[in-house]
Amino acid sequence: MRETLRNFIESRRFEWTITAVIVVNAVVLGLETMPAVMRDYGGVLDWLDKIAIVIFVIEILLKLFVYRLRFFMNGWNLFDFAIVSVALIPASQQYSVLRALRVLRVLRLISVVPSMRKVIVGLFSAIPSIGTVIVMLLLLFYISAVMATKLFGEAFPDWFGTLGLSLYSLFQIMTLESWSMGIVRPVMEVYPYAWAFFVPFILLTSFIVLNLFIGVIVNAMAEATDEAAHGEREMIIAELKALREDVAALRGKRE
Amino acid sequence: MRETLRNFIESRRFEWTITAVIVVNAVVLGLETMPAVMRDYGGVLDWLDKIAIVIFVIEILLKLFVYRLRFFMNGWNLFDFAIVSVALIPASQQYSVLRALRVLRVLRLISVVPSMRKVIVGLFSAIPSIGTVIVMLLLLFYISAVMATKLFGEAFPDWFGTLGLSLYSLFQIMTLESWSMGIVRPVMEVYPYAWAFFVPFILLTSFIVLNLFIGVIVNAMAEATDEAAHGEREMIIAELKALREDVAALRGKRE
Amino acid sequence: MRETLRNFIESRRFEWTITAVIVVNAVVLGLETMPAVMRDYGGVLDWLDKIAIVIFVIEILLKLFVYRLRFFMNGWNLFDFAIVSVALIPASQQYSVLRALRVLRVLRLISVVPSMRKVIVGLFSAIPSIGTVIVMLLLLFYISAVMATKLFGEAFPDWFGTLGLSLYSLFQIMTLESWSMGIVRPVMEVYPYAWAFFVPFILLTSFIVLNLFIGVIVNAMAEATDEAAHGEREMIIAELKALREDVAALRGKRE
Amino acid sequence: MRETLRNFIESRRFEWTITAVIVVNAVVLGLETMPAVMRDYGGVLDWLDKIAIVIFVIEILLKLFVYRLRFFMNGWNLFDFAIVSVALIPASQQYSVLRALRVLRVLRLISVVPSMRKVIVGLFSAIPSIGTVIVMLLLLFYISAVMATKLFGEAFPDWFGTLGLSLYSLFQIMTLESWSMGIVRPVMEVYPYAWAFFVPFILLTSFIVLNLFIGVIVNAMAEATDEAAHGEREMIIAELKALREDVAALRGKRE
Repeated sequence: MRETLRNFIESRRFEWTITAVIVVNAVVLGLETMPAVMRDYGGVLDWLDKIAIVIFVIEILLKLFVYRLRFFMNGWNLFDFAIVSVALIPASQQYSVLRALRVLRVLRLISVVPSMRKVIVGLFSAIPSIGTVIVMLLLLFYISAVMATKLFGEAFPDWFGTLGLSLYSLFQIMTLESWSMGIVRPVMEVYPYAWAFFVPFILLTSFIVLNLFIGVIVNAMAEATDEAAHGEREMIIAELKALREDVAALRGKRE
Repeated sequence: MRETLRNFIESRRFEWTITAVIVVNAVVLGLETMPAVMRDYGGVLDWLDKIAIVIFVIEILLKLFVYRLRFFMNGWNLFDFAIVSVALIPASQQYSVLRALRVLRVLRLISVVPSMRKVIVGLFSAIPSIGTVIVMLLLLFYISAVMATKLFGEAFPDWFGTLGLSLYSLFQIMTLESWSMGIVRPVMEVYPYAWAFFVPFILLTSFIVLNLFIGVIVNAMAEATDEAAHGEREMIIAELKALREDVAALRGKRE
Repeated sequence: MRETLRNFIESRRFEWTITAVIVVNAVVLGLETMPAVMRDYGGVLDWLDKIAIVIFVIEILLKLFVYRLRFFMNGWNLFDFAIVSVALIPASQQYSVLRALRVLRVLRLISVVPSMRKVIVGLFSAIPSIGTVIVMLLLLFYISAVMATKLFGEAFPDWFGTLGLSLYSLFQIMTLESWSMGIVRPVMEVYPYAWAFFVPFILLTSFIVLNLFIGVIVNAMAEATDEAAHGEREMIIAELKALREDVAALRGKRE
Repeated sequence: MRETLRNFIESRRFEWTITAVIVVNAVVLGLETMPAVMRDYGGVLDWLDKIAIVIFVIEILLKLFVYRLRFFMNGWNLFDFAIVSVALIPASQQYSVLRALRVLRVLRLISVVPSMRKVIVGLFSAIPSIGTVIVMLLLLFYISAVMATKLFGEAFPDWFGTLGLSLYSLFQIMTLESWSMGIVRPVMEVYPYAWAFFVPFILLTSFIVLNLFIGVIVNAMAEATDEAAHGEREMIIAELKALREDVAALRGKRE
């Protein structure tokens, strides 16, 4: 029976059903944000939502039964498990955050549709080559936040009062949003040399982010363009080897 | 006679005439925005505009006569047909939108000039390779909009009151325009942990958009740089094959 | 004597002297913006500036004498000629723009230093491959400006009152500066569907600019990376040809 | 004994110890920004900080003893030396800047962790290929700042009053932060043609920065993707040479 279930679970039809349930659930969750719809069809939407959760729970129970502990060795299963678990936490009205997190259920689309799964795996495969650059960016952020808190914290407690606020403000500055008119010009009215801190910060983060981009681009590029060329060169080498053997045979026979 | 017309329609001269009419029409449409010019030459401009429409209608009728139903199997013809149709809808003074849409006529330049047509075809050819990434971006937008509406809708009805408003605000945040000073800092005064929603949203959308860019770049690159190299490798392989045949002939003769 | 002068003009020493004059002149022009310096050394700076102009005029006269009319067939000479001419227009006090344009003289550094000249030539060499994309961007701008003027001109005369104002505002929107908080949200209070005009405009311009970037990148790439590989492949092909001749000789001798 | 010390200094264990000290020191420096923590554990943190400095000083003294003057021929050693020196300058309470600079100590992580060192070296290796472009960007900035000061300095002393203020404002405009709503629109109310200065400035800096990016990308690319292909082509050439020798031997024997 476990074998029959496995075939069922791994069938195309099952996959499509789950995909459909996710999409319907996504639409339901969207409709729930509209007060007019909720007033008239609130009950129906609630029922549809509950049915979707039940289907997701059954799906996971089936997979648990079929794969046993191996279920937890697959990252995508863990991803699904975590997302469905959030939906099962009994949330009273006031924990609106938990209720909002339920929308993450729609992310299951990524774990179900193979082509999306592939994109995510592709993104993760780029991480090793850019890991060091990310650590350096975090390091720069940490150092700058400590410095900004010490230098400007007293005069501008809303922006640089604590390490956390400084990190947030520096992130805003890195995205270049209102960095000058909103933050640095007011700071410069108190500390005229503040630009000597913020301008290098912007240049450095821009340069590091550029390197991050390049890391990802070079990675994607090397994979994409080189495969065909590599195949052809492999063929040339094989052809050459065969040729040398032919010539060697020719010499051998001669003697 | 249909054959004669086809030659006429597909001639260089016809193409240049239509291009000229479009350019003149573009200038006329631009002059119509200037009140001073309209006051003095309004009548002339109106006449020039009407002549251009008549020419476009005749052009399409000719093509319909020559190509019959095959006319509708060409995307560019459909594009021209749609644009000229808009100009024929009788618009009363108050439907200023319809009047404004007439300016789209100038877009016909793209369907007439071959090099522009090529650029557009190139853009579309990149879509398959980035389709999944676009779907993921839309998915992220939808989920985030539902969550933002549920979390911040009540306190900030102008920005996150409905799903539509949330989508617009999130688009603004994705472009990094006033995201912090304009939106997230005010929101954080009510919900201090709002950054935990918006900062990951910014990082995720940036990363997905980066992947979109890379998809397009790698596509363009693979096409551009590999052709020449591929040709040379093909030549090497052909040369090697000929050589092996020579050597084989040498061995054959020997026996 | 013309030959002697040509050798002098084309000598390294002459080039370096002119470079030095430009750099000194650049410093002088910078110092002239400082009121304190002008008060104390204004006369000296003025003299230094005049000496620099005289040197530049003599340089151009020398070149005109040596190269005659061929002088005007070199783009860089025309560039120098135009820049120096601006400095000779007698400017009364009120034409501060003409006085400011004199600073452009420092740009002569580009025409004098070979490595900079190379960068500029490189930039221009990319233009053919991105020309069509630029024309399409201008076309999109023109159409959008005409539409924006017709649609929003009456209600927002400061932003979209004339074709020129619309072009400027759309350029601002393309750079994403305050596009939403500053422009589109206020417009949407009068025309609730204004987003349907501006959001596609942003997406389209971003996509076209992306294509512009890709055009330049692919161009630079193809030049840089392929040369070495191309050389090696050429060598492989040459080697193969030689080999085939050897084998052919082998067969020929046999008969 | 110097040899024993050298082995000790260059050992893995020593490297890891220093790394651990830096990380602990980084955490301590972060905790020092939190008033609540400082009140309760200020003394302990101060001691930990002093211990870290002592360890760093001992490390440098050891290296000085082992390598003697060669110590100063390694860029990373100079980097460490400078950073540790800053920590030793006796700072009274009011020199908060010097106290803040001590946080830079955490940057030593870069000089200690090999993979980070490699990233930095990689960044520097790109500089020669983009040096000219950087000089051109600085040139453009200088010329534009002089012109802006002359043109708009009087009417807008806060933004363009001096060369320094102009440089800062132009940097802000280059990053596109509030360039139009914040700076150019107000300026245009006094000088209606100010856009003719700022729009070209934005286009030129964008284009130069794009070239800077491309320079770095092409550099990284050429290194990354070509190595493998180059190796294979080298192998093909070697194979071909061997083959020719075989054929030559065949011919030689024949005679």
